[in-house]
Amino acid sequence: MGFKVTILGSSAAVPTIHRSLSSQVLEHEQTLYLIDCGEGAQLQMLKYAVRLHKIDHIFISHLHGDHYLGLQGFLNTLSMENRKKELTLYAPKPLHEFLEAGLALSGGAGLDFPLHFVALEDGKATTIFENSRLTVETVPLFHRVPTWGFIFREKEKERNIKHDFIETYQPDFLTIKAIKQGADFVDKQGNTIPNTAITTAPKPPASYAYFSDTCFDETLATPISGIDVLYHEATFSDAEAHLAGERYHATSRQAATLAQKANVKRLLLGHISSRFLNDASALEQQAQEVFPNTTVVSDGDEYWV
Amino acid sequence: MGFKVTILGSSAAVPTIHRSLSSQVLEHEQTLYLIDCGEGAQLQMLKYAVRLHKIDHIFISHLHGDHYLGLQGFLNTLSMENRKKELTLYAPKPLHEFLEAGLALSGGAGLDFPLHFVALEDGKATTIFENSRLTVETVPLFHRVPTWGFIFREKEKERNIKHDFIETYQPDFLTIKAIKQGADFVDKQGNTIPNTAITTAPKPPASYAYFSDTCFDETLATPISGIDVLYHEATFSDAEAHLAGERYHATSRQAATLAQKANVKRLLLGHISSRFLNDASALEQQAQEVFPNTTVVSDGDEYWV
Repeated sequence: MGFKVTILGSSAAVPTIHRSLSSQVLEHEQTLYLIDCGEGAQLQMLKYAVRLHKIDHIFISHLHGDHYLGLQGFLNTLSMENRKKELTLYAPKPLHEFLEAGLALSGGAGLDFPLHFVALEDGKATTIFENSRLTVETVPLFHRVPTWGFIFREKEKERNIKHDFIETYQPDFLTIKAIKQGADFVDKQGNTIPNTAITTAPKPPASYAYFSDTCFDETLATPISGIDVLYHEATFSDAEAHLAGERYHATSRQAATLAQKANVKRLLLGHISSRFLNDASALEQQAQEVFPNTTVVSDGDEYWV
Repeated sequence: MGFKVTILGSSAAVPTIHRSLSSQVLEHEQTLYLIDCGEGAQLQMLKYAVRLHKIDHIFISHLHGDHYLGLQGFLNTLSMENRKKELTLYAPKPLHEFLEAGLALSGGAGLDFPLHFVALEDGKATTIFENSRLTVETVPLFHRVPTWGFIFREKEKERNIKHDFIETYQPDFLTIKAIKQGADFVDKQGNTIPNTAITTAPKPPASYAYFSDTCFDETLATPISGIDVLYHEATFSDAEAHLAGERYHATSRQAATLAQKANVKRLLLGHISSRFLNDASALEQQAQEVFPNTTVVSDGDEYWV
């Protein structure tokens, strides 16, 4: 239950020996969702034992190379390893044509599985994916090119029926289904037992947001209000705060300010500039002054949401 | 003097935890030449401490993704790290437009240094680069898409003048230059001293050939006759020999047969299929039965030619 996030790459545009380019995998009930696919994502999947054939949905935030240049190679690998199952790619519209051009260069070998392309809509917050267990929403971010954040929300789960009720009344399948959805129970004598007496509340639905790349804008707090974990870019520290707005990136303190305004539970910081090499503690400290529950991620890290 | 080869990636189309995708760096007199640039090449350069700003020439053998998908990310990194020096890319013609399309996706940020594009000519063996110290020739290979091998040859070096001659006669600059190029010396009395008496022969020029990907064809022995080191693909072992011709790849034994026919001095085998994981000893053994001086390379290996 809930999400497991595996960080494949946490560097900003230029990779370092410690950090590969932006990519992460969200696992939810045996399905993997790939978010961004910077160069080397497939190599990181090998390193961190990600079951790449379980990835059925790929989300690309924007068309700066460090967020999508691993995509064609990854799709080629899936195809060469005999994938037949369909895969859906949610990405800015121009990526479709570019990807087709790249695949065509190899002499028409193409992919051996169906690839569905869903174009993200400019400037629009919308639900782009939904199944019985979760939804994925987009949030337009503030960057130099059209960029989208993604919010993954589990759906409300069914209530858990208490064991002693089952044993005492041995209800049938349809009754169980109704009670799980909140119905009261009427026994053979016509007495009503309220639902809350025979069930316990389910775990609250988990929620996870991915916001990279963007500059600070407090309107972004609204769509992520109260979510469990926010992954946010932190390309700059306080010392370079003057560059953040100009380059449409955020400082770690700005990310923390957004987390605090949105009242999220935990903040993960990524998209770390190569200037910080293997020591991003300054970024983490500056953020923690505003929002204590902040962690700068490392490649290979796993977080449970 | 001579070449130093650093293997950045030695896998066939699908990378493994042990082998990254095709790419290698040839160093010659302080200049680096990059040959193929599979996904992750820039990450491997960080790992193996390649001075990436010394790369002035990039050669792409063909347009299967595993040989060029690291290029755009690598060029982006050079640009973001303030490269201003020009760089020349020798590659199949369609790559030019594809690369420009990719760079355009990022909102016109482009590259901050001049990139010259030289298109490889279909089916033609030609000298595509020459400076005062070496030449680079192409050789059309036999693959599913147009593919070129590259031969790097040092030019004949100047003869070395013996120290005692310099001390005795103290010749001027122009005389030294002429003697280095093979001229005899005439002293003040009009006596001719033959060049061979006052010079020693230079080291023979080094030569290196890169042949990946190709099926076996014995006509390929001619252009590489007598060269020092041949790097050749070895995608298949004897057990899969029936697939080699069909897929336009070679077995390690076929690579060795070519090396033996061409009378090269040493054979390096790469483009190793993921089927062999971390044990390619069968490929090496089968090749050595035909051509003993054969080595299957590993990522990070350095060879001196």
